[in-house]
Parts: sequence; structure tokens; C-alpha cells
Amino acid sequence: MKKINGGVCAPIGFRANGVHCGIRKNKNKRDLSLIVSDVRCAAACVYTQNLVKGAPIAVTKRHVADGFAQAIVCNSGNANTCNADGEQIAEGMCALVEREVGIPAADVVVASTGVIGQPLSLEPIEGGMPALAEGLSEDGSLFAAQGIMTTDTVDKQIAYSFTVGGRECRIGAIGKGVGMINPNMATMLIFITTDAAITPAMLQRALSADVKDSFNMVSVDGDTSTNDMVCVLANGMAENAVIDAPGKEFNCFRKALNKVTTALCRRIAKDGEGATKLLECKVSGAKSKAVARTVAKSVIKSSLFKAAMFGSDANWGRVLCAIGYAGADVDVSKVCVDFKSRAGVVSVCRGGSGIPFSEEEAKKVLSEDEIEVLIALGDGNGKATAWGCDLTYEYVKINGDYRT
Amino acid sequence: MKKINGGVCAPIGFRANGVHCGIRKNKNKRDLSLIVSDVRCAAACVYTQNLVKGAPIAVTKRHVADGFAQAIVCNSGNANTCNADGEQIAEGMCALVEREVGIPAADVVVASTGVIGQPLSLEPIEGGMPALAEGLSEDGSLFAAQGIMTTDTVDKQIAYSFTVGGRECRIGAIGKGVGMINPNMATMLIFITTDAAITPAMLQRALSADVKDSFNMVSVDGDTSTNDMVCVLANGMAENAVIDAPGKEFNCFRKALNKVTTALCRRIAKDGEGATKLLECKVSGAKSKAVARTVAKSVIKSSLFKAAMFGSDANWGRVLCAIGYAGADVDVSKVCVDFKSRAGVVSVCRGGSGIPFSEEEAKKVLSEDEIEVLIALGDGNGKATAWGCDLTYEYVKINGDYRT
Repeated sequence: MKKINGGVCAPIGFRANGVHCGIRKNKNKRDLSLIVSDVRCAAACVYTQNLVKGAPIAVTKRHVADGFAQAIVCNSGNANTCNADGEQIAEGMCALVEREVGIPAADVVVASTGVIGQPLSLEPIEGGMPALAEGLSEDGSLFAAQGIMTTDTVDKQIAYSFTVGGRECRIGAIGKGVGMINPNMATMLIFITTDAAITPAMLQRALSADVKDSFNMVSVDGDTSTNDMVCVLANGMAENAVIDAPGKEFNCFRKALNKVTTALCRRIAKDGEGATKLLECKVSGAKSKAVARTVAKSVIKSSLFKAAMFGSDANWGRVLCAIGYAGADVDVSKVCVDFKSRAGVVSVCRGGSGIPFSEEEAKKVLSEDEIEVLIALGDGNGKATAWGCDLTYEYVKINGDYRT
Repeated sequence: MKKINGGVCAPIGFRANGVHCGIRKNKNKRDLSLIVSDVRCAAACVYTQNLVKGAPIAVTKRHVADGFAQAIVCNSGNANTCNADGEQIAEGMCALVEREVGIPAADVVVASTGVIGQPLSLEPIEGGMPALAEGLSEDGSLFAAQGIMTTDTVDKQIAYSFTVGGRECRIGAIGKGVGMINPNMATMLIFITTDAAITPAMLQRALSADVKDSFNMVSVDGDTSTNDMVCVLANGMAENAVIDAPGKEFNCFRKALNKVTTALCRRIAKDGEGATKLLECKVSGAKSKAVARTVAKSVIKSSLFKAAMFGSDANWGRVLCAIGYAGADVDVSKVCVDFKSRAGVVSVCRGGSGIPFSEEEAKKVLSEDEIEVLIALGDGNGKATAWGCDLTYEYVKINGDYRT
């Protein structure tokens, strides 16, 4: 597997673009993105489990019900959620893609991200669509990545090449976070493209399995958004033998998919609202995989632990505390905790009790911008990793007045 | 029912005190408290559900297993949790009470609050105990309240008089928050005294029922502490006919208990770490009481909602979002939301969709220091209230470096 350039346009046959159409006031901020494939694609999606769902989710579900799609349109600046005319507007966005690009509206995946409960007007989208379509190109992934950003401070794209049955294939993605991110089915907006040939059923199977250990294990603030969606389009233009069953080829594809999703998890966590540090919680020795996941998520979500990491404070009692209230089957008298970073490793807890450690050494380890919290439960073979970030003044500032 | 002075010493036959014994470095901060009754009391407790439990909780459970106790000793500055010798130290604290006050160690309730995982030495406690016992008085509730404070900015005590079967009784309490507070069985430390006569079984029944709608409905940061405990001692010195069964007298007692617990819920939430505002989420029209509780707690816990309230930002989409991910049976198309305070009421959502409102008016309403979020689910008769506070820079500051 090799890291390559190009994001969602790295796979053969995909073009993308992003423009400022006027949903956002800031003219320097792109707010409308489009990704299209030359041919129809197998499509798979996972969605937020929030009962309050953005209108675009309902429309997308209908459009991919047959397992196929050919384009993705997404705006930022407005979530098109809790609006009486939401679905009509979302359908309107797809119709505009059909008009300008010629791809049937029913093959368009639509997404929106931004403020909830403010009416979304089609007018700026209609105005921006000709330029958006006109500018579609194989170099357009960056613009598309920029067009879906909300409070993200950096664009997020990634691509890998990999081999399936002797054929070289490519997989690429763009994504956006970075607040209201919590492990609950899909989180955030992630658009993945690949030129591998795979059936819709196997694509969905790969994605549904993958998110359990990738996007479901990321938490920025414990809130599950109304608009989260992960969508994969596979256009088959790499011309490998179609993956239509489990086996070696399917596993190759899953591995490539996981490479992309894991990289995005780390980037989204690290760019969490106001974050100064990426936190990676690695749990091992759990009674089961499920226990390991529950414990890792509980620790990564704890406000007190997150604030301590912001302060580079080795307050491991908060790790134990979060393990204890996780609601998982854990023998707390066996728990061991280490903090690890580029600067070294410091062991702070053995068998559920504190052990002496150098505060100076701990401060050095925790002052890095990527921290691993290693939790050994001593109770089995279950393992899991969760990603998150520290809780900072800046998070409060961003969210104290998000709408203005 | 009448509000009276005296906190835990308002009921007949209770004395209290609090001193600085040296667990904390700051000599102006009391760190050891004692409450005693002239006679043995019926005792009832509820405890944290965290698997990681402070050693004092294990010891207290043993001491009240017979339904009786006569004293409460509590230190701040150290949680005596995740220490290999924790239970021995907690038993040692009770033995010191026996030595100085003459109440059998097995009748002493013991509690600790502060940093987790740092060894607690008996030395300062032994040194401070004579003065603590010596100074016990009917005016000592304030000192006792101060001795259990951690990051609390104000002491918390309250007392009411009430009538049971024609006899005047009294009930009083001290409590402390204010971080690591989450609705999960007991939360925070609360010590309640009463001179009403009631059997241990009925006292436990009253307390267990009460916490479901009081302390279990408070959230400051979503973390459930390892040391939370609510304890009630009833010494019977008001000489009412012993309450030993459900009925009118029991209901009078429950009402008085709820008056005390609800007042403390509001104070603890309002004094939440870094808080500038008390948030009160009142849910009505739920399919069931359980649904109402789940929804109220989900909203009051949302970091995004809490940060918006800090900024006086009427971002009601975050209320809808938190209702949606609560995991409760709610028809989101029926949800109505209003914000209310001393300054007025502003309606922001009807039938799951936004309605026009004056941003200026909303800002005025949300700039008060006590905000009510009124959620009508339009789906039944279930009601619940949850208490919380806004998320502020100060919360991050306090918790970024709690241990130093």
C-alpha cells in the first residue's frame, strides 16, 4: 500500500470542485462542493443515529437505496436540519446537479453541514452551480475538501494505492470534523472514492464493519451530530475482477479502506474544536472487543481527563475514574496505565493503584502534541483504540458563540 | 414547611465542626469535618455506581449495614481512592472518632474527597481530631460545610422544619460539588440530618426514591465520581411516632427530604466548576417519566449546549440535537422548545422546526444567571427536571491543572 496524492480524485475517473456560492458570509470560504464519477458507482453509506436527522440524510437514503450513485454534492454553513422545507431543498440541490452535470438527481448523494434550524435557500446554490460544474477537475480534491469545512482549521484529504488481484487500485477521501463528534455509528462527513470494482453489497459490508473500529471510535465532545454521514463511491475503473464475496481480494480492499479511515480519524481528532493535542487511548487485555471499545471511548470522552491533558497534568485518577463508570465488565484491581509520547513513557498505575513516578518526566511526556494513553486491563485479549483531543479554552470560545 | 437556620445542626441533638488538619497545604482551608448525634440514628446511604470506588465507601457500607450510625467524618484534599492501604486508612479515621468522641468506630460513616490515587496519611487526621472533637457545637454546621468543600466557591447548607403527625421536626444538610458530577445513582457528597423518628428501612426507601429525581438529575461535566455518597442520619429526637410504613407521615417526610435535596441540586449545579449560569431543563409531555428523565439529562449534559448558554447564544439546534441522540423514544416532529429566565420567555422551536424569534430578545433572556430550557414533547404526561451549568473557560482552567 502506498500513500499517493489527489484525495478523492486520486482514483481513476473522479473529478471534484469547491466554490464559494454565498451560503457563508465570508467570501474567502468555499461553501459548496461537488464530486462526480465518469461512470455510475457502487455506493455505500453509514449515517448518524441521532433521531433528529438532517433533511439531506433522508434524501440520500432514497437515492442510494438501489446501491448506486454517481455524484456527491455538499454545502457548508447550514445543516438544512429542523427546517420544514428541508427535503425539498435537498432534492433541489440534486436537481441542480442533474441540470448542470447531466447526472440523474436520483444518483446524487447530498449532504449539508453547519447551523441547525436556519432555513437554507436554494438561491446561492443555484447561482454557484454553473461555476462549480464548470470547474470540475482531476485536481479539484483540495477545493472540495475546503468547501465542506466548518470549524476545521485544516483541510483533510488522503489517498492510497493498493493491489487487488494483481490490479493497481486507488482509494481517496476528503473529510471534515470537528465539533459535535461522538462515537455513535457514523460521525462527521467523510466522502471516499475508489476505482476498485466491488458490488454494492460487499462495499456496504466493508464500510459497516470498518466504522466500528474507525469513525465510531472518535470523540471530540460527546455530542452526536444530526448530519453525520460516511459515503463510499466505487466506480470499478481500475478494472480488477469485481469483488463480490469475502476472501483475499475483499480483505485487500478492507485493509486499504481502513488505512484511509484511520488516517482521517487521527486528523479529525487532532483538529478537534480548540484542540492542542491528539489523544489516542489504546486498551488491551480486555475480556472482549466490546469491553475494550467501551473503556477506550469512556476515557477519551471524559471532560476531566481531556482538561488534564490540556494542562499536561498526569492526573491518572481521572483515567481510572472514567474506566470505572464506563459500564463495562472490568476488574479495576488489575488495571495498569501508562502515558506515552515521542518524549518517552511514564507508568502511573499498576494493579489499580498508583505507583511513584517522576512528575517532571510525566510533564515532559504530556507536553507533546500527540499523547497515547495505554490501558492494560489484564483480563483477556480484547483490544481497541479510540481517538480524541484535549478540552481547551478555545473549544469553549468557539462554541460559546458559534452562530455569529 | 419553613426554611430555618443551622444546616446539619438544625435538627435536635446534632453537633458539628470542621478544622484545618493539614491534608491541604492552604492553612486557611478547613479539610476535616465531623457531624455527631447525641443518640444512635437510623442511617440510609446511596453511593456512586463507579466500579472504581473510594475506600471510604467500602468501609461506610460495612458500618451502616445494620441500618444505624451516629457520626460522619469526612476529609477533603484527598479522595483515598486507588490506594493499596485505603480501607485501613478509612477504618483508622473511624477509630480516631471513637477515641476522641466515644462513638464506636462501627457507627461512623466515613467519606473522603479530593485527588484520586495519592496516599492519604492518618497523621494529620490524628493530629487534628482532638481539636475537631473539642470544637463540636450546635453552631458548627458552617465549619463542617467548609471542611468538605473542594473546588466549591460557596459553602452549601440548608435546613427546613416540617410537621409529622402533629410534631415539629427538622431536617438539615451540608453538601459539596462541584466537578466530576454526573447523574448516576448518587453524585457529590451530601450529609443530611433529621430529628424525625423513622425506621432504617423507610429512611432508605425515602432516600432511594428521592435521588432519582434529585441528585441523579444533576450534571456538571458528565463524569461520575468515585467517591459520591448521600447519607441521611435520623435520630428520632423530635419524638414523633416512628414512621415505619408508607402513608401520610411518610409522605410528609419525603416532601421535606425533597425540599432539601432539590435546593442542594440547584446550588451544586449553579456552583459547578467554572459555571456562570444555572441551567434548568424542564421536560414535559414525554411518553413516560423515564423518557423525560433521559431527555432532560441528555440536554443538560451536552457540551455544545452548555457552551452556547455560556455565550448567551440561542442555538436551539443543539437542544434538538441532544434530544435526538438521547436514546429515548421521542417523536422529534412534535418537539417544542422555549428559553425562559427572569427577563422573559422566548419560543424558538415548534413541531421540530425553527420559528422566527428576536435575537435581541433571546440574548436578553439568556444573559441572566438562571436559565430554564422548557422542552414539550407533545407525546404524553411524563415530566422531569435536570440541573446543570454552562461550560466556561474557567472549567478548563480549573481542570487543566487540578492537582497543583
